[in-house]
Amino acid sequence: MDVIRREIEKVDLKSPIYIEGLPGVGYVGKLVVDHLIKELHAKKIIEIYSKYFPPQVLIDNNSVAHLVKNEVYAWKNDKGGDDLLFLAGDFQSVSSEGHYELTNTYLDIAEEYNVKRIYTIGGYGVGYILEKPSIICAVNNESLLDELKGYNIEFKKEEPGGGIVGAAGLMLGLGALRGIEGICIMGVTSGYLVDPKSAQEVIKTLCQILDIEISLEDLEKRAEDMEEIIKKLKEAEYTAKGAVKEKDESFGYYI
Amino acid sequence: MDVIRREIEKVDLKSPIYIEGLPGVGYVGKLVVDHLIKELHAKKIIEIYSKYFPPQVLIDNNSVAHLVKNEVYAWKNDKGGDDLLFLAGDFQSVSSEGHYELTNTYLDIAEEYNVKRIYTIGGYGVGYILEKPSIICAVNNESLLDELKGYNIEFKKEEPGGGIVGAAGLMLGLGALRGIEGICIMGVTSGYLVDPKSAQEVIKTLCQILDIEISLEDLEKRAEDMEEIIKKLKEAEYTAKGAVKEKDESFGYYI
Amino acid sequence: MDVIRREIEKVDLKSPIYIEGLPGVGYVGKLVVDHLIKELHAKKIIEIYSKYFPPQVLIDNNSVAHLVKNEVYAWKNDKGGDDLLFLAGDFQSVSSEGHYELTNTYLDIAEEYNVKRIYTIGGYGVGYILEKPSIICAVNNESLLDELKGYNIEFKKEEPGGGIVGAAGLMLGLGALRGIEGICIMGVTSGYLVDPKSAQEVIKTLCQILDIEISLEDLEKRAEDMEEIIKKLKEAEYTAKGAVKEKDESFGYYI
Amino acid sequence: MDVIRREIEKVDLKSPIYIEGLPGVGYVGKLVVDHLIKELHAKKIIEIYSKYFPPQVLIDNNSVAHLVKNEVYAWKNDKGGDDLLFLAGDFQSVSSEGHYELTNTYLDIAEEYNVKRIYTIGGYGVGYILEKPSIICAVNNESLLDELKGYNIEFKKEEPGGGIVGAAGLMLGLGALRGIEGICIMGVTSGYLVDPKSAQEVIKTLCQILDIEISLEDLEKRAEDMEEIIKKLKEAEYTAKGAVKEKDESFGYYI
Repeated sequence: MDVIRREIEKVDLKSPIYIEGLPGVGYVGKLVVDHLIKELHAKKIIEIYSKYFPPQVLIDNNSVAHLVKNEVYAWKNDKGGDDLLFLAGDFQSVSSEGHYELTNTYLDIAEEYNVKRIYTIGGYGVGYILEKPSIICAVNNESLLDELKGYNIEFKKEEPGGGIVGAAGLMLGLGALRGIEGICIMGVTSGYLVDPKSAQEVIKTLCQILDIEISLEDLEKRAEDMEEIIKKLKEAEYTAKGAVKEKDESFGYYI
Repeated sequence: MDVIRREIEKVDLKSPIYIEGLPGVGYVGKLVVDHLIKELHAKKIIEIYSKYFPPQVLIDNNSVAHLVKNEVYAWKNDKGGDDLLFLAGDFQSVSSEGHYELTNTYLDIAEEYNVKRIYTIGGYGVGYILEKPSIICAVNNESLLDELKGYNIEFKKEEPGGGIVGAAGLMLGLGALRGIEGICIMGVTSGYLVDPKSAQEVIKTLCQILDIEISLEDLEKRAEDMEEIIKKLKEAEYTAKGAVKEKDESFGYYI
Repeated sequence: MDVIRREIEKVDLKSPIYIEGLPGVGYVGKLVVDHLIKELHAKKIIEIYSKYFPPQVLIDNNSVAHLVKNEVYAWKNDKGGDDLLFLAGDFQSVSSEGHYELTNTYLDIAEEYNVKRIYTIGGYGVGYILEKPSIICAVNNESLLDELKGYNIEFKKEEPGGGIVGAAGLMLGLGALRGIEGICIMGVTSGYLVDPKSAQEVIKTLCQILDIEISLEDLEKRAEDMEEIIKKLKEAEYTAKGAVKEKDESFGYYI
Repeated sequence: MDVIRREIEKVDLKSPIYIEGLPGVGYVGKLVVDHLIKELHAKKIIEIYSKYFPPQVLIDNNSVAHLVKNEVYAWKNDKGGDDLLFLAGDFQSVSSEGHYELTNTYLDIAEEYNVKRIYTIGGYGVGYILEKPSIICAVNNESLLDELKGYNIEFKKEEPGGGIVGAAGLMLGLGALRGIEGICIMGVTSGYLVDPKSAQEVIKTLCQILDIEISLEDLEKRAEDMEEIIKKLKEAEYTAKGAVKEKDESFGYYI
């Protein structure tokens, strides 16, 4: 079992836009896409299981165990704008090779749904707490740069210097080999903490680009809740590894 | 050779219950299942060898080398209750991907024997020595929760926070994909030491659930013996890694 | 997708000489081959993508993401000397097994182009800053040693003591199994720093061997530029790993 | 290329005994088998290359690069005793799974040559310098124990406590699954240093068992030479890893 796809439902979409948000730096991608899925009431259409994920189940509120997975959600745009596909999930691959295999699965789905554009969402960790949120961007085709001007996006030469690692990067790189346009939108973040503030900034810009409206009213509170939840998860995880990031008074503030 | 199954004997069982107990946190699962196999005089029916196990043999009392393996044992219930299958062994997979491959082998066996229910046994390491043994539980189907009420089992939201890693978790997760009911019973344990006391607690509860009787007379002594043996094994192992857990006076007592 | 070859152009070459220069000790191989490709205006003919490379894209000056890759360039020699093939790229394999798989791809290309000789370029890290650049050499067939005499190359018994790791070594070793002659030219280098000075020394000797002329005028400056660029890359990389090599006053000078 | 077998020569042997000695604890196995091959002038019949070996070449006295490999040698016994096959080489697998794959190759060769018995040679590291050399033993079939009595071999319950790792162990374990008898002879050694003294002790006993005569005159000196050579190799290797074992005055003597 390299990768198992479990089809939940078949939805008829018109050349949708595909938005990836898996766990990564600052959990920015995951926060953004999980929020969009919830607010838009997108429908789960595919579950992806793989031996490249960590070999474990996660336990929910009711003591029910769920095999680690990624999920694809679909949203039909009733107002004439673009239909959307979302890629969300618990984890990314634990192995280097698995990232390639899984991304090819994600792109197979893109081709099946005749996806015309991919947005991948990530965090760009700069190593210090930012005073003011900002967003940077990378594309897999220079012709895409023009349409990103006019939004609240900074363009920085050769940044991130270490490239973009994981699904957010590979969907652009492997997508280009398949002729699929891809844009990576990165919330600049410390890299130390889960960063819902950076996620909000990314959502605002993404919604402008997609011309959709998302309730922001609920967002601040949910961001706080999510932060609490994920911080607990991270604490548990890091405690085991002896790698807990302690509160550091030198930080100007906590997001 | 990904996985080699060596069939020792074919036994006719009636939709047995399948109980997994491989090495893991506190050796709880292994202690429980090895004890049940011995007390019930269950018959070995399958040996499983795999390149996902450590590349080594173990040496017994007579200087005979045995390839690292997992084993399946069968027990026919003469009193009209459920027949039992047991999964026991020396090690779990050394690689993340191997856990998935091996668990699929374990579940193939489940399907061949028309298993109606899986119990996986593990330890839940909390990081401190417990005053009083306790047991928690996870299921792979919410409908199973009801029948677990009335036993000495605590239900805790989202615990273990880090999920259940290895065969105990994956047999639930991958089992659900095959439509097999699964319950994981975890003895709460420090996680620092082999914990036969926690294993005894789990055995008592498991025997109530299964409605079987197991000699407990012998158990306390065997638990002590087992503890001695495995402690020696662990010492040898940890010494090599410079990771010996020294006696810590702050512990209230030693289990 | 183990390895993906993307053919850019088919070029007609006459039993070319194949020169490998991928990232490695002191970046010597990469500096040498990237310089030769640029100065000779060699044409890119093949791109190689693989799951054995790091799972990421790199970002260029224009915020365009490029999937990590290796590349083959061709150069037709108009003056009657040998045609050349170059192997260049961003990274080597991240896994031990991947080195073997990728090298077999490199050698498949060699056979398709009827390559008569391979030169692999690398750095030999000695652990201290050298006063005077020097070059050592290894061959995959003792009969090749004679023709290397008379050049500025030292022969040292059993050096490098640790062998030659990665593509530079495997192309000789696996090449020999296919009957392809191979010579590894190593610039002796500290191993601590990117070393364009050692690369220059290797280029001079290689050009003598190949009887080609390469502008050296531009080289010193480009070496300095390259050093600056790659040092930044390395800093970013090492910072993340907490493995930055700090300036050490005991070094006589910086190359 | 998982494993490549290169047949050098076909030799007609009569149910030979197969003796494995690859690098491992104290280099005991390698020292023993390399000495036997040299003294008996055994003929190389097979070379084994594999992606499971380190991805590198080794450099000899003449600057010739050799791909890392394992080798099988054959020796016909003209005096009516058993013919011998030897398994020697530069390295063992770098991955856990590779040990299984390679051992299956070694055993395929055993079956092709109708091998009737395997001896694997290893070192048993006890963590301190021994005053007096000793040998322990493990078998893959209890019936083999009897014939080992009367030799200078100690039998110790459950030792080595950590089992026997790598080819020396797996050839017994996987060999048993194929019905091939196997005995592992281990020279007890500190585990810190290459140990030709322990190797000599093993050779003496092995020659008694096999009823062959090996020049011992040359042995002491060659052991010293070998020790010098391999110590240098190890130093180079360990220096790179920052894991050099410094001279320790508490050692009573150096072997």
